[in-house]
Amino acid sequence: MELTALTLNEVADLIARGWVSPVELTEAYLRRIDLLDPQLISFITITADLALEQARAAQEEIGRGVYRGPLHGIPLAIKDLFETAGVRTTAGSKQLVQHVPVDDSAVVARLRAAGAIMLGKLNMHEWAMSVTTINPHWGTCRNPWDLNRIAGGSSGGSGAALAAELCSGALGSDTGGSIRVPASFCGVVGLKPTFGRVSTRGVLPLSWNLDHAGPMARRVQDVAIMQQIIAGYDPADPYSIDAPVGDYPDLRAGVRGWRVALALDGFFSASKQPDPEVIAAVRAAAQVFEQLGAQVTEIALDGTQTATRATLNMIVTDSAAYHAERLAQQPDDFGADVLESLQRGAKLAGTEYVLARRTQTTFRRQIEQLFDDYEILLTPTTPVAAPPVDEPESSQSRRPMLVSYTAPFNLAGTPALSLPCGFTGDNLPIGLQIVARPWAEATVLQAGYAYEQATSWHDRRPSF
Amino acid sequence: MELTALTLNEVADLIARGWVSPVELTEAYLRRIDLLDPQLISFITITADLALEQARAAQEEIGRGVYRGPLHGIPLAIKDLFETAGVRTTAGSKQLVQHVPVDDSAVVARLRAAGAIMLGKLNMHEWAMSVTTINPHWGTCRNPWDLNRIAGGSSGGSGAALAAELCSGALGSDTGGSIRVPASFCGVVGLKPTFGRVSTRGVLPLSWNLDHAGPMARRVQDVAIMQQIIAGYDPADPYSIDAPVGDYPDLRAGVRGWRVALALDGFFSASKQPDPEVIAAVRAAAQVFEQLGAQVTEIALDGTQTATRATLNMIVTDSAAYHAERLAQQPDDFGADVLESLQRGAKLAGTEYVLARRTQTTFRRQIEQLFDDYEILLTPTTPVAAPPVDEPESSQSRRPMLVSYTAPFNLAGTPALSLPCGFTGDNLPIGLQIVARPWAEATVLQAGYAYEQATSWHDRRPSF
Repeated sequence: MELTALTLNEVADLIARGWVSPVELTEAYLRRIDLLDPQLISFITITADLALEQARAAQEEIGRGVYRGPLHGIPLAIKDLFETAGVRTTAGSKQLVQHVPVDDSAVVARLRAAGAIMLGKLNMHEWAMSVTTINPHWGTCRNPWDLNRIAGGSSGGSGAALAAELCSGALGSDTGGSIRVPASFCGVVGLKPTFGRVSTRGVLPLSWNLDHAGPMARRVQDVAIMQQIIAGYDPADPYSIDAPVGDYPDLRAGVRGWRVALALDGFFSASKQPDPEVIAAVRAAAQVFEQLGAQVTEIALDGTQTATRATLNMIVTDSAAYHAERLAQQPDDFGADVLESLQRGAKLAGTEYVLARRTQTTFRRQIEQLFDDYEILLTPTTPVAAPPVDEPESSQSRRPMLVSYTAPFNLAGTPALSLPCGFTGDNLPIGLQIVARPWAEATVLQAGYAYEQATSWHDRRPSF
Repeated sequence: MELTALTLNEVADLIARGWVSPVELTEAYLRRIDLLDPQLISFITITADLALEQARAAQEEIGRGVYRGPLHGIPLAIKDLFETAGVRTTAGSKQLVQHVPVDDSAVVARLRAAGAIMLGKLNMHEWAMSVTTINPHWGTCRNPWDLNRIAGGSSGGSGAALAAELCSGALGSDTGGSIRVPASFCGVVGLKPTFGRVSTRGVLPLSWNLDHAGPMARRVQDVAIMQQIIAGYDPADPYSIDAPVGDYPDLRAGVRGWRVALALDGFFSASKQPDPEVIAAVRAAAQVFEQLGAQVTEIALDGTQTATRATLNMIVTDSAAYHAERLAQQPDDFGADVLESLQRGAKLAGTEYVLARRTQTTFRRQIEQLFDDYEILLTPTTPVAAPPVDEPESSQSRRPMLVSYTAPFNLAGTPALSLPCGFTGDNLPIGLQIVARPWAEATVLQAGYAYEQATSWHDRRPSF
């Protein structure tokens, strides 16, 4: 097997033993990026020189016995929303083509300190403002499972680069589903942590009140390893919350005796329903949890449609506030869909925003109380598998449908994991979403790991 | 001394010993209300029959040895914003003249369960939407220290009734200063607890995101006794937060060795300054803290003017969202000043609301960090003593000035106590505000008690 196909955890073990050098691993990924990324456009910026320099430093340190832990010498790629010292950070926009930050974002600094290597900056939906990564400035990111389909977004580059084995792990951000949707469409694993768990200092904002930074990788264990490094209180981020961090890589708890809620309905109006293939795959996943000793109860979740609308109203208004100056001065520098969203946000009344916030507060309490009765909640991550680039599901007006299962948990602020739970007849990945109470990242990771160990969806690889 | 002049704590002791009966105490207060309140208009509704029934029940229970604690048999009065089962609740508006709630608000239920007696429902600024209690529907509440002056607001009835010795304690609510401003103007004690500490279930809202329910009384000990009863998590209030409740009536910690910040400047633009008499009184109060063994440092507090503007923008918009239907259908049922505020709120852009919320988040973090260096912060409660009813300070356009010291701590959500710290040359009370970190109600109460024990401002009584 090629080095690049190994999981983060596998290759970290080989690096720790000195059997693989960070330099050869980095070179292997850079070669693969050169070879394959022109078709995918998962990267906006490839930082080959920096990566090799970091790899040599890691190799030298490890060689003299200074091993920093499981991210030491591991090549990662970073969504281009995270500021990186000395490396252009575009947010997928052409407006920031000259933006070279002085400082690293808080999480990038933590990854660097852990010895990780940065291969480059990943493609994304412009300003993170939708879930397709159809990007008019940097090119549309393609799905490795079918190049005619979207990779999802806004962290589309993260999902595609992982699925195509162009990096060991990636950073994403999630405001309405932007980690989980591309994880679902690309057949990888993504964690949206609890709101306030991971610092968003130095992450270009979409919505201050809903933005979550989080890890993505090919396996649950890999996501847990990254989460351990990036989690934790940051007094310099006013949205960061001081709560004890768990031991995330210890995933062996199992789900025996857990009470598991399964929610499939209530997320959609009558005019649009999820794909039956998706529903069947998630039902089958719930049966796996039963076989693992959990007790599964199918429930109807109230208020999710209102929650999704509130989330989308907050996103467009928060972003219109942030972009007010650009919107007034250079509106045409935005892509058409982003401009339309921003203009909608600029027009939204304060009183409507108040009602969205009110929905947030009451829905959050409702979800917290749900977890008085259940350890975890299972839902599909997305109602359909990755739609074609040119089909209606990818059009601006249909995109909110894609976040129907994910956006409510941005509003609630709960941790939510997406991982593969099957494939459509067209060989497209289907995502399972696992949600738990606030701060229970360990719970969703343990549940995801138990499911992953019991299944083998992760063995399938895209061939393109 | 008359029974009605005793403090809550004093009379509770006499009731516990069986030396005073709740019935005679209640009758004494009802007589005094009948005699004096026509001049003050501190009550909207007097519930004499209910009070006497509750008093007889308390007397009977205590007589057979069932003593519920220090509020058993104590006559309180309730701001008319708190819903009371079977008793009209008007919010100071004529729109609710027929509103007789089925259930008690959460805090009223707690007070009832503790054996307290309800004398009636207190006057307030219409819908709590300003700080004067100049009320076009129920009459202007007068200040017992000078009947030509306002009592403050919106809990003006609470302040005036306490100063005039018409009840032992009162409930108020505070969204921009509505407990502390009347406490300051009327020479009594008022506590705005931490946001989320006291349930607001069944409290008619002014601003969901800034409303705080809290106790008012003539002495710090009395406020602490009430706070002990009303504090605590309420899962049915989505704004309630589950945090451990302290032992508030244990006030003897003293302030020796405490680091005390004193902030006088930064709250005003150059065009308006606080009254030098107020500043002198607060400086003298700070010296008392030094004599008690604290180390006082004068600081400049940044961001308070922006914080006050954000608070007022959130209040008008939150209330415009809540009143949307009334505003559309019966605008003329609102008083002129309230209607003007609501119309301003209805016009505020969502993006402006977003910036106010952003200010809230950053200012809250700033204030939390201030309390890394200090146990408490001292400021004036109000920049002037109670203005005349007909003078510019009481006019709609000048009222925001009155909350310059208080509103920032609604935005920050920190506990803040107001208590008397002197008198102007016109014999009007001056209020000292004591602020501490979130959840540190015990700290502000201990500091207030230490100051109160060292001074005798509370011995002065209004004569009218």
